[in-house]
Amino acid sequence: MTIRRISIIGTGLIGASAGMALRAAQFPGEIIGWDRHPSQAQLALERGAVDQTTDDPITAAVSSDLILLSGPVFSIQDWMEKLAPHLNPHQLVTDVGSVKVAITARAQPLFGNPGQAGFLPGHPMAGKEVSGAANADAQLFTKAVWLFTEFADHPLSAEWRSWVERFGCRTMDIQAIRHDEICAWVSHLPQFLSTALSAMLEDRFGDAPDLRAIGGRALREMTRLGASPYSMWRDIAHANDAEIAEALLSLEQRLAYVRENLKTPELREEFERANRFRTTPPSIP
Amino acid sequence: MTIRRISIIGTGLIGASAGMALRAAQFPGEIIGWDRHPSQAQLALERGAVDQTTDDPITAAVSSDLILLSGPVFSIQDWMEKLAPHLNPHQLVTDVGSVKVAITARAQPLFGNPGQAGFLPGHPMAGKEVSGAANADAQLFTKAVWLFTEFADHPLSAEWRSWVERFGCRTMDIQAIRHDEICAWVSHLPQFLSTALSAMLEDRFGDAPDLRAIGGRALREMTRLGASPYSMWRDIAHANDAEIAEALLSLEQRLAYVRENLKTPELREEFERANRFRTTPPSIP
Repeated sequence: MTIRRISIIGTGLIGASAGMALRAAQFPGEIIGWDRHPSQAQLALERGAVDQTTDDPITAAVSSDLILLSGPVFSIQDWMEKLAPHLNPHQLVTDVGSVKVAITARAQPLFGNPGQAGFLPGHPMAGKEVSGAANADAQLFTKAVWLFTEFADHPLSAEWRSWVERFGCRTMDIQAIRHDEICAWVSHLPQFLSTALSAMLEDRFGDAPDLRAIGGRALREMTRLGASPYSMWRDIAHANDAEIAEALLSLEQRLAYVRENLKTPELREEFERANRFRTTPPSIP
Repeated sequence: MTIRRISIIGTGLIGASAGMALRAAQFPGEIIGWDRHPSQAQLALERGAVDQTTDDPITAAVSSDLILLSGPVFSIQDWMEKLAPHLNPHQLVTDVGSVKVAITARAQPLFGNPGQAGFLPGHPMAGKEVSGAANADAQLFTKAVWLFTEFADHPLSAEWRSWVERFGCRTMDIQAIRHDEICAWVSHLPQFLSTALSAMLEDRFGDAPDLRAIGGRALREMTRLGASPYSMWRDIAHANDAEIAEALLSLEQRLAYVRENLKTPELREEFERANRFRTTPPSIP
């Protein structure tokens, strides 16, 4: 078996980038694209991310060896439900969702059992604060980690993983629970923090020109993700809420600790702990 | 009057970068450097930031037209006290301190009165999470804003400002109180936030290799300033503690609000406010 035809369901930033990365990696087969916004599919076509668009994603999926589900978590789950009855065991469905416990739980009755298509839960740790096929990039995944969580093995899984590696990714296997825990701290927390910080500054300073003029690299970096769309993050907030709430509460407490120790020797120890986080090998690149 | 000789007191990251920027801008005069760590002054000399080093900064200052005080806030204040009695009205002292109310208050009795040297409170909004002359860069100030706060005018002030503009800076005048308020939110808050976040992750995940492998650009950006040295920030925490505490408390409350609204429609409005902060013109570059 080999992957000759791929359907990308959701040709936004990640889906279109995957199509462009497949092309850059010399994928010889055909790529069909669909998006709930036809203009996004058209743009993906124009940018060379897909060979053709479709307005009938179920038929496209039925004729594909691999179906890549890309989009917000709940839309991935919806497409899992819609597609599963139409697929057969020779086909593999994979996804790029930011939450893996909820997605693998939904996949359990739908995929990998006798007569059913396969499923491979995936998550590339790459993205941008801007969305859409217009911002897609064949190099988006270069040097990123593409995570996979456990599911019943499928004959096409190894081939999809090898394509992902040709995107310039390191692949890494992780338990779904550990995935959701770690992502809450290193990905979801930075997003909700940047949103909260940006919204707070908007409320307090509005369009004060001096604030914007004075803010330098630190402000830019800390608020960059403030531009992220709610549409993408609503589902993550719902699907991983307990882990995210724990991370947020922990940061609130930590900020209070720093605030209460601005003039005490404890501040030195806090800086030293932070310094260690940034220098412990493997250091954060 | 014109600036022919400059003494840089403190040839760390900012001081040495200023020397290199002066050279890159074709400053024709002489630059003398001193640092409490002689190796930093030597490195500044080797990197072309100064023409000579000295182990007698008071004598060097006495023979200089302009004295640039660079270093932590309290060391700037110490040098103001030490130098003022030796200087005359033809000379100008300027600084790069991150807090301006405390520094201008200290300057009031020391400078700008009859028989005293002049003072020009300054603050380049540029820096790095790493310190020292080894990280100095003639381009550090390019496109940054160099802030100045009010003080008695001096004949050399305009010339120093014009040099700063030749570094590629925009200069901007701001009241000292407004400076300390805005810097608390756009510069000091990001630092203490990044320190708290990095220290929290260090405590919770220690050297867990999967956390470091999985964290992407968001984690890198949010924790970059976690590498900043306590030695630089201790004085800022002391000298601007009320403003910083207010900003930290406000962020704590905002994070709690987001945490309590992960599954409510209020989260959409929070994202929309954050989006506005990132898109309102002049947008943050």
